[in-house]
Amino acid sequence: MNERLKKQLEFALEIDKEKNIFRQTHLSGHGRRENDAEHAWHMAIMAYLLREHANEKVDIAKVILMCLIHDIVEIDAGDTYAYDDENLKTQKEREDAAKERIFSLLPEDQKAEFIALFDEFEEYQTAESKFAHSLDNLQPLILNDSNGGSDWKEHGVNAAQIYRRHNLTKLGSDTLFEATDQIIQENIRRGSLKE
Amino acid sequence: MNERLKKQLEFALEIDKEKNIFRQTHLSGHGRRENDAEHAWHMAIMAYLLREHANEKVDIAKVILMCLIHDIVEIDAGDTYAYDDENLKTQKEREDAAKERIFSLLPEDQKAEFIALFDEFEEYQTAESKFAHSLDNLQPLILNDSNGGSDWKEHGVNAAQIYRRHNLTKLGSDTLFEATDQIIQENIRRGSLKE
Repeated sequence: MNERLKKQLEFALEIDKEKNIFRQTHLSGHGRRENDAEHAWHMAIMAYLLREHANEKVDIAKVILMCLIHDIVEIDAGDTYAYDDENLKTQKEREDAAKERIFSLLPEDQKAEFIALFDEFEEYQTAESKFAHSLDNLQPLILNDSNGGSDWKEHGVNAAQIYRRHNLTKLGSDTLFEATDQIIQENIRRGSLKE
Repeated sequence: MNERLKKQLEFALEIDKEKNIFRQTHLSGHGRRENDAEHAWHMAIMAYLLREHANEKVDIAKVILMCLIHDIVEIDAGDTYAYDDENLKTQKEREDAAKERIFSLLPEDQKAEFIALFDEFEEYQTAESKFAHSLDNLQPLILNDSNGGSDWKEHGVNAAQIYRRHNLTKLGSDTLFEATDQIIQENIRRGSLKE
């Protein structure tokens, strides 16, 4: 096996660890907590399924790739809950170190390619990044909604906190934000979420 | 929310169940069994990572999509172990019924699109299907190899059975088959796999 393929397969094996990084979201049917790999798979399919709702024309293959790799750094850095202000402060530093270690397993050209894709997602500037973030928000929302908002209840978060994050869904898709807004309002009405 | 988006979100929620379909492969580090969603995520990234090794020029976005959706039918049909000859006999019938039920949640045009993609994968004729199958084979192989071949030992399979499946990797990628062959031979040498 040549060096290049060996490196590629080492990286492939390393990212297997993403399946052990658990999030705060629970699977539908009041299931166990979801892991990062499952979340990435789910939002990648949703990106393709819902691509007609993107505000701008997007390169959907690039969006799907962003969805698939955007949480790889959490293998080292761990999952940071979207409403955990303390851990959010150190998130960038932890994720930068992880990015360097993990993508360095790849051949140089692919390290550069994967880091560029990861950074583009993080920087939230391009149409593809904005739409990928819309799915990053919507995917856990539909799971949590299907469980009667139990993830929000568990963490005692309020509607203002939820909107602070989900308002950004608008940047990628007005239509998906409208759906988000309906789901949040319905959860407030039924008492799953504090105003 | 309009009818079309409602259907799309119902489908998105339904496929969450794929995270509860467990395979015979174990995660690296002698971890728990892997589920279908994790497997699909992993092979989709591997398809992109290893695309230079495809025998023919492939539309990599299509390969990735095939990888992502190819096991959705197992939500109803269950996972059929690659070396379980009894269950392999009824696999197609079970999966056809599942395909009809699950993809019918989608708007008509998307039902047709997803079924076409699923069927193309299953039919094993196009360059994209052949390469996607190479990853479907290689992904569990690297996990099992990292665990000293424990999945093969558990099921008492032999090298001839393993080659019957993995020989097909050649159709998508000679290079990935060479790597496969090295991995299998090494497992025979260290006694993890019966000749």
